[in-house]
Order: sequence, then structure tokens, then C-alpha cells
Amino acid sequence: MIMKSYLDMTKEELQAEHELVAKEYKELAAIPRDLNMARGKPNPVQLDLSMGLLGQDPAGLIVTRKGTDVRNYGELAGVDECKQLFADLLGLEQKNIIMGGQSSLNLMYDAVVKALLLGVYKGSKPWGQQGTVKFLCPVPGYDRHFAICEAFGIEMINVPLLPTGPDMDMVKQLVESDPAVKGIWCVPKYSNPSGVTYSDDTVRAFAALKPAADDFRIFWDNAYIVHGFEAEDDHLLNIFDACKEQGSEDMVYEFASTSKVTFSGAGLAVMAASEGNVKFLLKQMGVQTIGYDKINQLRHVHFFGDVNGIYAHMKKHAAIVKPKFDCVLHTLDKEIAPRGIAHWIRPKGGYFVAYEGLDGTAARCVALCKEAGLVLTPAGAPFPYGKDPHDSVIRIAPTFPDLPSLAAAVQLFCVAARLAALEVLLEKA
Amino acid sequence: MIMKSYLDMTKEELQAEHELVAKEYKELAAIPRDLNMARGKPNPVQLDLSMGLLGQDPAGLIVTRKGTDVRNYGELAGVDECKQLFADLLGLEQKNIIMGGQSSLNLMYDAVVKALLLGVYKGSKPWGQQGTVKFLCPVPGYDRHFAICEAFGIEMINVPLLPTGPDMDMVKQLVESDPAVKGIWCVPKYSNPSGVTYSDDTVRAFAALKPAADDFRIFWDNAYIVHGFEAEDDHLLNIFDACKEQGSEDMVYEFASTSKVTFSGAGLAVMAASEGNVKFLLKQMGVQTIGYDKINQLRHVHFFGDVNGIYAHMKKHAAIVKPKFDCVLHTLDKEIAPRGIAHWIRPKGGYFVAYEGLDGTAARCVALCKEAGLVLTPAGAPFPYGKDPHDSVIRIAPTFPDLPSLAAAVQLFCVAARLAALEVLLEKA
Repeated sequence: MIMKSYLDMTKEELQAEHELVAKEYKELAAIPRDLNMARGKPNPVQLDLSMGLLGQDPAGLIVTRKGTDVRNYGELAGVDECKQLFADLLGLEQKNIIMGGQSSLNLMYDAVVKALLLGVYKGSKPWGQQGTVKFLCPVPGYDRHFAICEAFGIEMINVPLLPTGPDMDMVKQLVESDPAVKGIWCVPKYSNPSGVTYSDDTVRAFAALKPAADDFRIFWDNAYIVHGFEAEDDHLLNIFDACKEQGSEDMVYEFASTSKVTFSGAGLAVMAASEGNVKFLLKQMGVQTIGYDKINQLRHVHFFGDVNGIYAHMKKHAAIVKPKFDCVLHTLDKEIAPRGIAHWIRPKGGYFVAYEGLDGTAARCVALCKEAGLVLTPAGAPFPYGKDPHDSVIRIAPTFPDLPSLAAAVQLFCVAARLAALEVLLEKA
Repeated sequence: MIMKSYLDMTKEELQAEHELVAKEYKELAAIPRDLNMARGKPNPVQLDLSMGLLGQDPAGLIVTRKGTDVRNYGELAGVDECKQLFADLLGLEQKNIIMGGQSSLNLMYDAVVKALLLGVYKGSKPWGQQGTVKFLCPVPGYDRHFAICEAFGIEMINVPLLPTGPDMDMVKQLVESDPAVKGIWCVPKYSNPSGVTYSDDTVRAFAALKPAADDFRIFWDNAYIVHGFEAEDDHLLNIFDACKEQGSEDMVYEFASTSKVTFSGAGLAVMAASEGNVKFLLKQMGVQTIGYDKINQLRHVHFFGDVNGIYAHMKKHAAIVKPKFDCVLHTLDKEIAPRGIAHWIRPKGGYFVAYEGLDGTAARCVALCKEAGLVLTPAGAPFPYGKDPHDSVIRIAPTFPDLPSLAAAVQLFCVAARLAALEVLLEKA
């Protein structure tokens, strides 16, 4: 096998390499298997870490510190001790916190719905009564964010995600010139899927925005806030601190959840915002529900104790997750990097590696993997409307498979990626 | 004290009675107290009945019968065994069931939102793109239903609730002539607040509707389906059975919850609909969330075993709730009935007694109670826009207070009600 960049190969060398790789692929594809690197799901071993949430003494799950019976109606924003736990996590105060069920995606969807139908705090009228509504979408990004926009006919504008975060010159230009731009989707830490954490300058540039719209909101999906798996965690500036300097706190809706801390679907979701936003949102939410599951809130408070309990818990996740990322990254380093056919950021946290290959290879690579028994996130998924303009990005999700399956999956992936690259290069050669 | 109908009294008799009752009220009001018959909340003793939900062996809360890990993402419609439990309860099949979080109000709100923004199954376009949207509101009814319409600017039309259910001649006329009529709110069993259960003819008349709109939906909020507290339960025809005869199953969204079965806010909510509706709704819901809390679903399955477990459990609730309704009804029988100043239905289940007094007395009675330390649901609440056209209906919620407090509260209420009636009668005398 020639360890030479494919980009430097002659046509003959490419043909010889193609023959070798095609053979290797064929052999691998002949082995029946059922591998999956498609979705950012925790492995059961990670879920086992939170079994202490269950089986707690029922006597401790009846009243809050101030005496509210959590088994009955009430406390729309959540119980105080739980709000405090998440306020500490987010560097905010209880008055900024809404404990909202068990799905932060649901909170984001609901926030968009309410803005469309009812409007936002200090906004002149509902988004839905103002004609075209546009959202900025740093790409690659989270497919489920984009699906919300697509469902409601919100026009999506791609903004490149740089290693420092979204291209803030472009964001500023669009947000400050076009009142139809009502929002932007951000995963500011260990971004889904590229693993980028926004720089302090990027966060400050967000806080300094002067939107053309009086009802623009930053959807700050801090999904991986405590999901570092290396000894050193990425630093993310608290956007509300930056906003305070600018008087722009009302511009931000922050979201987080314990879906990848405790249980995926049975954890807690939180929304954080300025006091004005929170009061306004609670009034709207009071029509939707009488309250969320406060027993589960108390369960989480008991399980963690305080925010340090969350940090300690996440170290256990890191010990499980890190070897999987190492496996993916080492294999890519060995099999792909020398061939010069792709690049990727080495995330220190989060749930994904974004493989950026040659133009026109992503869909083919995903198809080759599928044929050989490995399911990947569909090519294009990390882009609005599922359309990757370069057909080059593939989201790799290493956490769900066990390590042996993952190793086999990545090995297969690299062969498929090489084959897809060779096909494109040969076409042009 | 003269036990004569106030309606038959001379002016002088009314004046003498007023003097007596005003004195009695003054004495009662002088006693400091903090009584509440405002909201349909279970008493803690009822919540204690479900403590077996908590403290279950964690080992049993990991996988479903078919092996799905409930701690992880997935199963948007809920886990099979839980869907089966509620299918049995509602007389339907699993394919008709969506297990949706812990608040049926939230499910209803979301169903309205999705209809407004995205449209309904087989509807030509979203409600929100068709100009005025109207809902029929059987009155008195549930204030939170009406609040949803009010929030979204949906025009509400009062329809009288008769002892057999809504006035179906009026419903038919409006639904079949006006395509802007998109929905109707129904609490078909032990209706909130009047306690009426719809007759078979009423249910069949619903099923036989031929709406002018192609996207009309009956919001069938079966909140009190298993909440009878007498030996004999009211019979409610399964609306889907009636619809099958008419081919109109797509017209109905049914809702229920365990908010007053297990825990209020930490139970389970369910939506039931035709297979076509369910498929269509799940596609919409898949954008909103990855799934609801499946661990809580499994908890409920373990706790109840099967639908007979729910029935047995509700007998324990009945034993607690019935004495409270008896207390209210006996006191009304004794203190109000002979005076001829109000009537009410004697509910065999549910959470409320709807006191219908003389015109122009409800707000005054509620204010008198408040002054004397008893909080009631605001007069007007059971009507759209909070406006009781006759100012005559007061919703009494007997469940939350303990029996001694309730007895004191009802006693006070009767004195206030008599005083309010006397004031109105004297004004006209």
C-alpha cells in the first residue's frame, strides 16, 4: 500500500490504488455485520452511570426544601433547588432558569412556535405576521435544528462555521441589515458535528450584535456544556456575561439538558434567559401546561447534590467516551491523513467528529458503508434542507457502539472513504 | 331561620332574612382562615396512593419487553406495553395511541399549534392560513381549554351544555355550515365543571357530524374517564366506535392522563386518534422531540400491571373523594336547595360541582368568600374570555382540602351564596 497523498498521485498510481482499495472494500463488505455510527446516542454503559437516579427512597421525593409537594400541580418554572443546580451549571441565577421537561429540542421547538404565533418579549408582533422569516445556520450544524425551520417554512441561510465559531462578519452583516433574520442556531461548545468551541471574540461579537429586527433571538444550544472528555476542557465564555456589558441579555435563549448526562429522554431540559424573557415566556407557557415533572427534578437534585456532582459524574462519562474518540481519531490519522483526502477537527468533547472529505464524496462514502453493513448519518444531514453544497461532510458518532464494533466500523469507513475519494479523483484524472 | 324559598318571599321577609344572613356572614368572616376550593387538585392522601410508582427496583426500569433500553433515545409514540395499557383503558388499539409526556393539556395545546401552523391529516392547509378560526365551547367548561383559544386569537362560540351533553342541534348547525369552525372542546365524562356525562345519542351525534371544514377536529378531553366515585359509574359510549359506523374516525382527537390517577404533573398523558391521524401527528412530533420519558411509562406499567390495576387503584381514590363530594352536596341540599336560589347536577365522578345560582350573583359570592378567607375559582372562569353571560356559575372543587376544612368552606360558601342572592332579590323587590 502506497502511503502517499492521493492528491499527488498520477493516474496510473490512482488506478493501482483503486484496484487495491476496491478489493479490500469487497472483502470487508462480504462480512455480514450490523454496525451503526449514525446518531449521538450514549452507550448503555454510560446510562448505567445514572442508575442511582432510580431506586431513590420515595420518602425523599415528596416535598421540596420549601415544602412544595412535587407530586401535585404547580411550580411551572421548576422547583427552586433544581433551578439553582442548573443556574450554577450555566453561571446564572434562579430567576433566569426554566426547568422544562426532558427534551431541550422540545423547548427550542416550542420557543420557535411561540415566537411565530405569539411573538417574543419586546417584539412588536409575532414572527408569523411579518412575512418571510429567516434563520442563520452555521454549517455544518445540527440536523434537528434545521428540521424545525424547515417544518415551519423558515428560510435558512448557511453561515460557515470556522474553527473559532460562525463567520461573525457574515452573521453581523446579515443580522444587522435584514429585519427578516429572526434567529441563529448555535451549538457553542463542542459543536454538533464539528466539535468547534466558539472563541471569546466570537461570543463577544454575538453579544455586540445590533439586530435590524426588534425580535431577533440567538438560540444558544449549550448541549455539550459539560461533555469534555480530555483532561483540559474547552473554555466557553458565558454569553450572558458578554451580553451584560452590551445590555443585550434579552437577545439570547440558552438551552441545555441532561440527555447525555443522565438519561436520554428521561433526564431534564433547561432553558435560560434574561429575567424579562423568562417572565414573558412563563406567561406563554402557563397556557401550554401546568408544569413539568418535578419528581424527576428532585431525583436529579438528590443524585448530583450540587454542580460539582455533575462535574464528577461527567468525568465518568469521559472515561468511557474518550477511548472511542481516540479510536476514531487514531484510525483516521493512520488511514486517511497520509492520503490527504480529508480533514477534521480533533474535538475535546461532545459527541461527534465531522469528517470533511473531497467534494462529491460524502454521499458515495455513506452509500458504500451502508452496502457493507455500516449505517452513518445521511450525507447532507448537517446542512439545511439536507443539502451539503460540496457533498463533503460526514458526521461520525462514536459513542453508541462498543469499542470492538466501533473499531471495525471506523476501519470500514476509512476504506469506503478512500474508495469514494479515488473514484472522484480518477474521474478528474 | 325561615326554610322558605327566597323566590317566594315578600320584600319584608327578604329584608329580615338578609339581616340574619348578613350577621351570620359577618361572624364567619371574623374568623381568620385560609380555605381553598379553587382548583381541581388531588389531596396529598390521594397522591400517597401512588407512592408504589416510586422506589421500584431500578433493574426493572431498563428495558421493555421487546428489549428497548428506555434510558436511551427513541420510541416517539411510547413503549408498546404502555401504549397497550392505555389502549385497553380507552377501548382502542396500540396503533391509535401516542404516549405524550406528562400533561394532556400540553398535548392539546400542541395539537392546536400544529393544526394552526402545519395543518391536520387530510386538511387542505394550516388553520392559520385560512383567516378566522372558530372553536365551539360547551359552557360551562374548562378554563384552560378556553385559554388556549384565547392565546391564539381563536374565536370562541358558547354552546349550552345540557344534562345530556352539548346542545347537538346547535353544534351540528354551526359545524356543518361554517368552514371556519375548526374544533370543539369536550370533556365528555364528568364534565369540568358541571359533572355531566354525554349521552349515547350525543356521542352518536358527534360521530355523525359532516363538518363544512375538511380539517375540523373534536377535542375529546376524557380527563375523568376512570374518575367515578359512586358504586355505579356513568356510561360513556366510545366515540371511536360510534365514528366507525360513520367512517368519521379522523375527526376525533382523544386525550387522557394520569394526572388525577397517579401524580399531577409527574404522571402520563396520552393522545388517541385514528391510525391516519397518529401517523401524520407522529411525523410532525418527530420534529419537536426525539421522545418522551419512557422510564416513567415503564414505571406506570409495573405499578398497574394492566387496566384492571387502574380500575382497582381508582376505587381507592373514590373512597377518599366521595365523602368530600357528599359533604358539599349534603350542605348544598340543606342550606341552598330549600331556598330555591341555585341548582346543580349531582356528579358521580370527576372533580367539580358546578353551582348555578341566580343571575348576577356569582362574582359577588366569590368576592364575599374571598373576604372571609375562602378562595374559589374566579367567577366567569368556566366561560370563554372569563365572561359568564349570566354571572351565575361557580365552580366548586372539593378534593384538595381535608374534610374538616372543606366542611367549613362549604358552610361559609352557602352563607355567602345566600347573601349574594338576597342582595339581588332585594334590589329587584
